[in-house]
Amino acid sequence: MSSRVLSSSRSQCRLVKPILNYRCASTRNTTPEARRPRRILSGIQPTGIPHLGNYLGALSNWVKLQRDALPEDELIYTVVGWHALTLPQKPKELFKSRQDMMAVLLAVGLDPKRSIIFHQDHNPSHTELAWIFNCMTSLGQLRRMTTWKSKLATARNTKNESDIDESLLNAGLLTYPVLQAADILIYRATHVPVGDDQTQHIELCRDLADLFNRRFKGKGSMFSLPQIIKTQTKRILSLRDPSAKMSKSAPDLNSRILLTDTAPQIQAKIRSSVTDGLGELTYDPEARPGTANLLTILGAITGQEDLHALAATYSGKGHAELKTDTADAIEELLRGPRAEFERLRVETAYLNEVAEDGARRSKEKTDVTMKEVKARIGLA
Amino acid sequence: MSSRVLSSSRSQCRLVKPILNYRCASTRNTTPEARRPRRILSGIQPTGIPHLGNYLGALSNWVKLQRDALPEDELIYTVVGWHALTLPQKPKELFKSRQDMMAVLLAVGLDPKRSIIFHQDHNPSHTELAWIFNCMTSLGQLRRMTTWKSKLATARNTKNESDIDESLLNAGLLTYPVLQAADILIYRATHVPVGDDQTQHIELCRDLADLFNRRFKGKGSMFSLPQIIKTQTKRILSLRDPSAKMSKSAPDLNSRILLTDTAPQIQAKIRSSVTDGLGELTYDPEARPGTANLLTILGAITGQEDLHALAATYSGKGHAELKTDTADAIEELLRGPRAEFERLRVETAYLNEVAEDGARRSKEKTDVTMKEVKARIGLA
Repeated sequence: MSSRVLSSSRSQCRLVKPILNYRCASTRNTTPEARRPRRILSGIQPTGIPHLGNYLGALSNWVKLQRDALPEDELIYTVVGWHALTLPQKPKELFKSRQDMMAVLLAVGLDPKRSIIFHQDHNPSHTELAWIFNCMTSLGQLRRMTTWKSKLATARNTKNESDIDESLLNAGLLTYPVLQAADILIYRATHVPVGDDQTQHIELCRDLADLFNRRFKGKGSMFSLPQIIKTQTKRILSLRDPSAKMSKSAPDLNSRILLTDTAPQIQAKIRSSVTDGLGELTYDPEARPGTANLLTILGAITGQEDLHALAATYSGKGHAELKTDTADAIEELLRGPRAEFERLRVETAYLNEVAEDGARRSKEKTDVTMKEVKARIGLA
Repeated sequence: MSSRVLSSSRSQCRLVKPILNYRCASTRNTTPEARRPRRILSGIQPTGIPHLGNYLGALSNWVKLQRDALPEDELIYTVVGWHALTLPQKPKELFKSRQDMMAVLLAVGLDPKRSIIFHQDHNPSHTELAWIFNCMTSLGQLRRMTTWKSKLATARNTKNESDIDESLLNAGLLTYPVLQAADILIYRATHVPVGDDQTQHIELCRDLADLFNRRFKGKGSMFSLPQIIKTQTKRILSLRDPSAKMSKSAPDLNSRILLTDTAPQIQAKIRSSVTDGLGELTYDPEARPGTANLLTILGAITGQEDLHALAATYSGKGHAELKTDTADAIEELLRGPRAEFERLRVETAYLNEVAEDGARRSKEKTDVTMKEVKARIGLA
C-alpha cells in the first residue's frame, strides 16, 4: 500500500483513497522499484492552535506522507520557533504555543518513533548554516520574495502611510527565507511538502544548494536540490470573508475552526458562515466563494475530488443541508485529534521527552552535514 | 601593578609604562577598590598574517589588557571565522589563515590558560543569538552603519557604475554588525577594545542589549551595556600611500609590514616608505603624513607619547636616521613574536588542543547565557 502513493502515473495516484491527493509531477517518471529513498522535511510555526486550513493544508498531509512512506524514507517535522520571532511574540504565549504544537503533531497522528519531530530552536546548527547562506544570498534575491513584498505592503497599510519603506522592518523578516533554506538543506532533504505561497522560497533554497555545490567542491555534490510536494487541496477560506484565506490572525474568531473547537462550536461557525442567497447549489469559486469554500472543505474531508458533482448531490436541497453535512464531516474529522490533543497537551513530561529525543536525532543528522559544510568552506 | 592600568585618573594612567595607553574615560570615576570585575572581549578576522597596524592597533593591546587585568577579570579573544565569510574566501586559504591566526594570538603573548581563546565558528550559539537580534534590528539601523555605506561605495567604485544599489551585496555584509553584537553580548562582556571604525557597531550592540533588557524582563537585567576601551594609538598608515590605512588587502606588498617579515624585509620596506623631501623633521600629520606615520610607529613602540618632541630629537639629522631607528624598533618589537609564530604555526596538534579547550570554555559561558535568553523570550 505504501508503495502506491507516489507511483508512476497520475491514475495510479487515484487508487489511493485520499484525504488529499498528491500531484505526482515530481516523481511521475520514477517507477516504485527505481525510486530512491526520500528525505521529507516540513515545518510549522508555534503560533497558536492550528485551524482547519492548517489541518487540511499541511498537517493531514504530513500524516499521509508518514503513512505512505517507504521504510527507507526519512521524515523530519519541525516546530519552527526561530521563525516565530520575526513577528512580536509574548514570551509566555510562545512558550505555551511551542508545547501545544508538539502535542498537536502527535495528536494528528505523527509518530515520533517513525518521524523525527523536534523544535528547530533546540538545534543551533540551523542558524549556523543560515549565516553561511546569508553570505551567499544577495539582498536583491530577498527583496524579490513576494512574502517580503506583502509584509512591506501590510506595514504600509497598517500605518496608513504610503511613504513607509522597508527600513522600519526587522532584518529577520527579510532574511527568514535563508533560514528556511538552511532548515531544509541541513538535512539534505529531497522533498518538501509546502503550500503555493512557499514556492518562491523553495526556489531560493534550490538556488543556494546549487550555488554551494558549484562553489565548494568535494566528494560529490554537497546538497540535493529539494523538490516541492504539492497537494491538490484548494486553500481553505475565511468563514466570514471568503475573499481571504482562513487565518490565525483574523480578529473574528468565527472566521476559523480550531482543532480545539467542540462539536457545537463547529456547528455554530459553519451555520453562520458567509455563503450567498442564490438558489440551486453550484461549485463556482469566482461567483460563489463562500459556498465553494464549504464544498472544498467537505470534498477534502470525504475524498470527493469533483466538486461540481458534489454540488450536484445537493440538487433540491440548499445551503442548510450543505452546512449540516460540512459541520458533521469536520466534527468527524477533528473528534479524534481533538481528544488526543486535550489528553496530550498536559503531559508535559512526555512532550519534553519526545522533543528531547527528536532534538538528539536531529543533531545526529545536522552534525554530519555541518562537519562537511565547514570542511568545504574552509572552517573545519 | 595590574591595578594601575585602569585607575581613577588620566594622570595615574600615565604612570604605567606604555606600549599603548588606554583612555581612562570609561572608568574615570571608578576607584580600584570599587571596580567591578570586567569581562573583556574582542575578535579578529582570520584573513592572512597580521600587519604592523593590526599589531599596534589591536593585538598588543590585547596582551596588555591580559597583563594588567585583575585576577577576577575575564578575557575572551576570538578568531571570527563567520565574519570572514562576508567576503569571498578561498577555502584552503581560509583554513590556513584560521590556524595561523590562532598561532599569532599565542605568539604575541596571549595565554590560553589566562584568557579564553577560541574560534567563533566552533561555538554555534553565536549565530543563535544573532538570529534573535536580527528579529530586533530594523533594516534602517543596519543601513545607517558607515561600514555598510563604505562597502556600498566600494562596490559602486569597483564596478565603475554609479547605479549599483545594495541589491547586489550579500545579506551577511548588511547584518554582520548584528552577529558582532551577539559575539559580545553572549558573554555579557562589559568592555570591548575596538578601533574607532567600530564605535557605531558597539552603539548598536548597546542598543540591542538595552532593548532586550526592556522587552524581556527577568531577575535583573539580561545584558550589561558594554563599554569601549579605546587606545591612544594613532592609526598606522600605508608605507606607500600615507593617505590610506595600512591594509591587508592593498596590492602593493611594500605598503605594509607583516608579522612574518624578516629584519632585511622590514629595513627595505621602511627605507622605501613614502615620506617627503622637506628638511628639518617635524610631526605634522596633515602636511607630512608619511613622516608622521613613521614617528607614530616609532613613538608607539618606544612609548614616546609626544611626537613633536620625538621629531625634535632628529634635529640636525634626517629621514634616513628616522627610518633606521624605526626599522630597528620594529625589528626589536617583532623579533620575538615572529620566532614564536614560526615555531607555533606548524604545531598543529597543539593549536587544535588550544582551540578545543577554548571552545569548551566558551561554550560553558554561552550555554548559561542562551538558557536564560531562551527562557526570557519564550523558547525554553
